[in-house]
Amino acid sequence: MTSLPGFFITFEGIEGGGKTTQIRRVADRLSSMGVDVLVTREPGGDPLAESIRRLLLDPANAPVAPAAELLLYAAARAQHVARVIRPALESGRVVLCDRYSDSTDAYQGGGRGVDPEMLRTLHRLATGDLKPDLTLLFDLDPEEGLARIGTRGGEKDRMEGETLAFHRSVREAFLNAARREPERFRVIDARRNVDAVTDVVWAEVQTALEKWKIGRREACP
Amino acid sequence: MTSLPGFFITFEGIEGGGKTTQIRRVADRLSSMGVDVLVTREPGGDPLAESIRRLLLDPANAPVAPAAELLLYAAARAQHVARVIRPALESGRVVLCDRYSDSTDAYQGGGRGVDPEMLRTLHRLATGDLKPDLTLLFDLDPEEGLARIGTRGGEKDRMEGETLAFHRSVREAFLNAARREPERFRVIDARRNVDAVTDVVWAEVQTALEKWKIGRREACP
Repeated sequence: MTSLPGFFITFEGIEGGGKTTQIRRVADRLSSMGVDVLVTREPGGDPLAESIRRLLLDPANAPVAPAAELLLYAAARAQHVARVIRPALESGRVVLCDRYSDSTDAYQGGGRGVDPEMLRTLHRLATGDLKPDLTLLFDLDPEEGLARIGTRGGEKDRMEGETLAFHRSVREAFLNAARREPERFRVIDARRNVDAVTDVVWAEVQTALEKWKIGRREACP
Repeated sequence: MTSLPGFFITFEGIEGGGKTTQIRRVADRLSSMGVDVLVTREPGGDPLAESIRRLLLDPANAPVAPAAELLLYAAARAQHVARVIRPALESGRVVLCDRYSDSTDAYQGGGRGVDPEMLRTLHRLATGDLKPDLTLLFDLDPEEGLARIGTRGGEKDRMEGETLAFHRSVREAFLNAARREPERFRVIDARRNVDAVTDVVWAEVQTALEKWKIGRREACP
């Protein structure tokens, strides 16, 4: 839990789990109820974080050393947290974030074998230990997830182009994280149809926000 | 000691100690003896590392979160090490580097109070634990160092504009590092006149390179 007045929800999971659709639906529903919502994902519209993303994609900079890449992503997160997420939480907003530290752990740690202790140190530095209040993990078999992306059309990005074995390790890393922190995580069965998933997601979000509101009332009677 | 065929010398110390003059003199003398020398400093001419430096200086990106800044400098170092320093050492060159990890420890750790354990993790990631074979620490009282810079003319950079107390902590941190690793460090009294300092520096470099050459001969008889 953050000690900030806002509420911080992250949406995590491998590709093809429908995160992006669900985040939009939750945001729309909360907004229509008058809740002040911020939807974000790195680089989150921060100019420095955007510039860092462009650096990483610029062919003139290739090849980027793997350590430099990891550090640049951590720098973009540090700026995104300091300039976008933390101010929104400080002013009491509900922040919905598409991927956060758990993705780095799963893809860089689980997928690529970066030392978890090193990742923890980077998170601590980049986020100042800002943890989500709730993390929704959209879980499905990578084979199904990748098949769904295949039907989406358009160019596959670099992560989507990885092997099935890679995505299996990533999924396993996400599930392990959920087992380690059952208080924070809710594992959502993302194989079901999109509306059924929305129902489950919404129920989880409502329960969490109710507890948060009660907490707020108790803090400020 | 690196396990690479080259030899890696770093030049460290607070501002005004004369590092830059001495590094040039050592480089000239080694080159005139036919030694293959590379003189470098971050960002070391690497396009990505140069771009990172520009990002940090661009007013459009201000304010840069302190953690983002630290991570960006670490990313620039990671790229500089991977693309410039390590390849030069692998091909057997003598690398002279103007500031390296000890500066980060002294300025960020000693000066700004960043957790040393966090800095160690960043170094490990950024450099792959590539340590200098020899570090020449140009030591003098910060008051004298800053006075020397004052006579140099031109705009003071950000570090030069810090308080005397800051520079004293930095000096102390450098000296502590030298006490912890007496094998690697040589503390050079930088108060003496520039030619006298050159004599001491050259003696240290010669001794170190002699040992290195003997090591090389033993490895490849």
